[in-house]
Amino acid sequence: MNMRDIIIAKRDKQSLTDEQIRFFISGVTDGSIPDYQISALLMAIVLNGMDEREMTTLTLEMAQSGKQMDLSYLEGIPVDKHSTGGVGDKITPVLLPLIATFGVETVKLSGRGLGFTGGTVDKFESIQGFNIEVDSKDFPELVKKTGMVISGQTPDLAPADKILYSLRDVTGTVDSIPLIASSIMSKKIAGGAKAIVLDVTCGSGAFMKDYAMAKELAEAMIRIGNLAGRRTVAVITDMDQPLGRFCGNILEMQEVLNTVTGKGEEDVIEVVTELAFHLITLAGKDAGMSSEVLREEIRQRLSDGSCFEKYKELITSQGGVLNASGSPVYVDTPFDCMHVNSPDAGYVQSVRADLIGQASVLLGAGRLSKTDPIDYGAGIGFFVKTGDRVERGDSLCALYQGAKSDLPEERLFDAMDLILEAYEIGPDKPSKKPAILGVIS
Amino acid sequence: MNMRDIIIAKRDKQSLTDEQIRFFISGVTDGSIPDYQISALLMAIVLNGMDEREMTTLTLEMAQSGKQMDLSYLEGIPVDKHSTGGVGDKITPVLLPLIATFGVETVKLSGRGLGFTGGTVDKFESIQGFNIEVDSKDFPELVKKTGMVISGQTPDLAPADKILYSLRDVTGTVDSIPLIASSIMSKKIAGGAKAIVLDVTCGSGAFMKDYAMAKELAEAMIRIGNLAGRRTVAVITDMDQPLGRFCGNILEMQEVLNTVTGKGEEDVIEVVTELAFHLITLAGKDAGMSSEVLREEIRQRLSDGSCFEKYKELITSQGGVLNASGSPVYVDTPFDCMHVNSPDAGYVQSVRADLIGQASVLLGAGRLSKTDPIDYGAGIGFFVKTGDRVERGDSLCALYQGAKSDLPEERLFDAMDLILEAYEIGPDKPSKKPAILGVIS
Repeated sequence: MNMRDIIIAKRDKQSLTDEQIRFFISGVTDGSIPDYQISALLMAIVLNGMDEREMTTLTLEMAQSGKQMDLSYLEGIPVDKHSTGGVGDKITPVLLPLIATFGVETVKLSGRGLGFTGGTVDKFESIQGFNIEVDSKDFPELVKKTGMVISGQTPDLAPADKILYSLRDVTGTVDSIPLIASSIMSKKIAGGAKAIVLDVTCGSGAFMKDYAMAKELAEAMIRIGNLAGRRTVAVITDMDQPLGRFCGNILEMQEVLNTVTGKGEEDVIEVVTELAFHLITLAGKDAGMSSEVLREEIRQRLSDGSCFEKYKELITSQGGVLNASGSPVYVDTPFDCMHVNSPDAGYVQSVRADLIGQASVLLGAGRLSKTDPIDYGAGIGFFVKTGDRVERGDSLCALYQGAKSDLPEERLFDAMDLILEAYEIGPDKPSKKPAILGVIS
Repeated sequence: MNMRDIIIAKRDKQSLTDEQIRFFISGVTDGSIPDYQISALLMAIVLNGMDEREMTTLTLEMAQSGKQMDLSYLEGIPVDKHSTGGVGDKITPVLLPLIATFGVETVKLSGRGLGFTGGTVDKFESIQGFNIEVDSKDFPELVKKTGMVISGQTPDLAPADKILYSLRDVTGTVDSIPLIASSIMSKKIAGGAKAIVLDVTCGSGAFMKDYAMAKELAEAMIRIGNLAGRRTVAVITDMDQPLGRFCGNILEMQEVLNTVTGKGEEDVIEVVTELAFHLITLAGKDAGMSSEVLREEIRQRLSDGSCFEKYKELITSQGGVLNASGSPVYVDTPFDCMHVNSPDAGYVQSVRADLIGQASVLLGAGRLSKTDPIDYGAGIGFFVKTGDRVERGDSLCALYQGAKSDLPEERLFDAMDLILEAYEIGPDKPSKKPAILGVIS
């Protein structure tokens, strides 16, 4: 078996055999296959696709290319959640303590933000003292104590996926359902999950721009999950405008605090509730409740203080500092440095999340390259979102910087330009779009 | 401009701009574009194609990536000929002296054989003393003396093509009309040709397996040639069975001697005559003859001794040794070591040239990897070819080795097996296929 023949097979639209995929991933992992052969095969996969057996084998081989986490110390079925990313996506910090109140234990590995997509790791790092790089040896003890642990990705998990991903980024081979699906699922499987809930975001601020594409990705991941023996549910959520009222690291963690104390935005609550429902059910912790009762109970726990208690446990167990009233202490203080005002009267037709995300990066909340520093206090707060009425001169949103920021003024104006482009104002009230676009299992 | 965007454009089926192609080839030449990005783009080109403007720009950029030969010292229009390769293809050594008798001067750069395709360089090297690595400074003097010079490819001609070719070989990106056409045409243009005659071989022993593919490649090269301001003619020739009576280096040079002394095989003569006709015409040396008269005159020069005289001049001018009767002295003596006999009675339906080529390589006449040594005396002689009648036990062909050969016996038997597979014997006489399948200009 040699790599050239494998490339030619995929170039000629053949299905790769399990042995060929095994040979490929093992050669990627041990470095015996040169980059130029890997990238030629990746491009052939992008253009000629893969069937579900190939995707599943690719996923499992990548999952087995490094260390695999053993979560047998958890109570119940190990579950995991993954979001395909978005702008203002503060779901994970709410979801973990929420499902922990139902006895669902989770070991969550998260990534940093890159481009206009935020990362959960950065959000937790905006809390003073919070240790996001937990040694995996300490996972069982932390989970036993609070029911959850959150940590950055460890490099020994699915190393083949990391090698492929870094090549895909520079060879135009990111946009591929088989490659995206296998990359996500390989990390979840290596992470030890036996049941997986996917938040497949859809819209201008997501990787999948329309419902059909999001559905295709969701279905691919579900097929892989099922063929790999993992119960998998996908929730397709709207990411056509930013989620909630804020984007930016500290700003989003403040919104998280609002949500876990019963003062959350409805779109955030809807998404959190739907994901929690499936996670609790798959973990076998629904205690025989009907789906209606369980959904009601989930919302209840956000407002009755039980989720807030769990949230505080999570923060303190990983070294995060709380003040006297139980709120986290952040590494910086966001200040509201400029408002962007509406140039017209009318209804907000749309708020393009990709442009908002780019504006947020310009303000310092995100990074364009992996080594860029971050201003944890930077971000954007939305006074109005899609469907809201504005008059000419009304504030659309506020731009924030951290107290320590020394952002050049022109960056503020560039961000403002992007925001004016993001907001479309028109005469008619648009129909409301639900936060949950579909559930596939 | 960056390479990632160029890859994505081609991945998304866009035409690359001239600037993008220039950026690509200049980065390939100076080594600034990494191999993994080159191979990703090559695969995207294989699968999504290129239009004629893209192919022409690619060709010209590759031609200009290194030294470009100036042939202005030649009398008349500089012409060049290229064959896409075959088994038993001994056209060039006949063609050069033949057109030289009409005053057509040629500077011919040729390659070595690889795989089952023979190379003109190896054939000339089988003549004692013949210097095939001529310094390009000496080209004008040699051409002035004899009207021709033949030499191995110089590394400074179209270096971008060499880099791409070596990557294509290992990344499954050889099979692509735009990449094949631009590779061939870039070398011809860098070699200084103003008019180009292409011998596009077609059939089991050629790269293009059927007429439609050969025609597509021929048309692509003609469009490139015309857009690049080079008059270009393509002759599509049959390579479904080996050309002539022999394959192997010394054996083919012996057949060349037969051909230039009027004792050639009809298929060889037909191809040589057609190519000579177009080269003489494009070079403006047809002296007003009608095509019928010119073709007749070409055949005449093969049998009246004038081509033989020129052939001897070519050999001696580059150091080759002739014996007292004017025949070249070879570096070895082929001996006939085994006959392969027909297992059945009937008509030869076909002689698969690829299998014959592989058998010839097994005997030592060719190389599988660039550094393999060659047995110049090895090869195969055909007693019968397609359409001939055989009885059971009749010799189909003879296997040859050089006198110095120490070939393991099992290689002989492996070669024999391939030959038995190559010959198809059936009850009905097949209809004769012409040597020239088409002319496109």
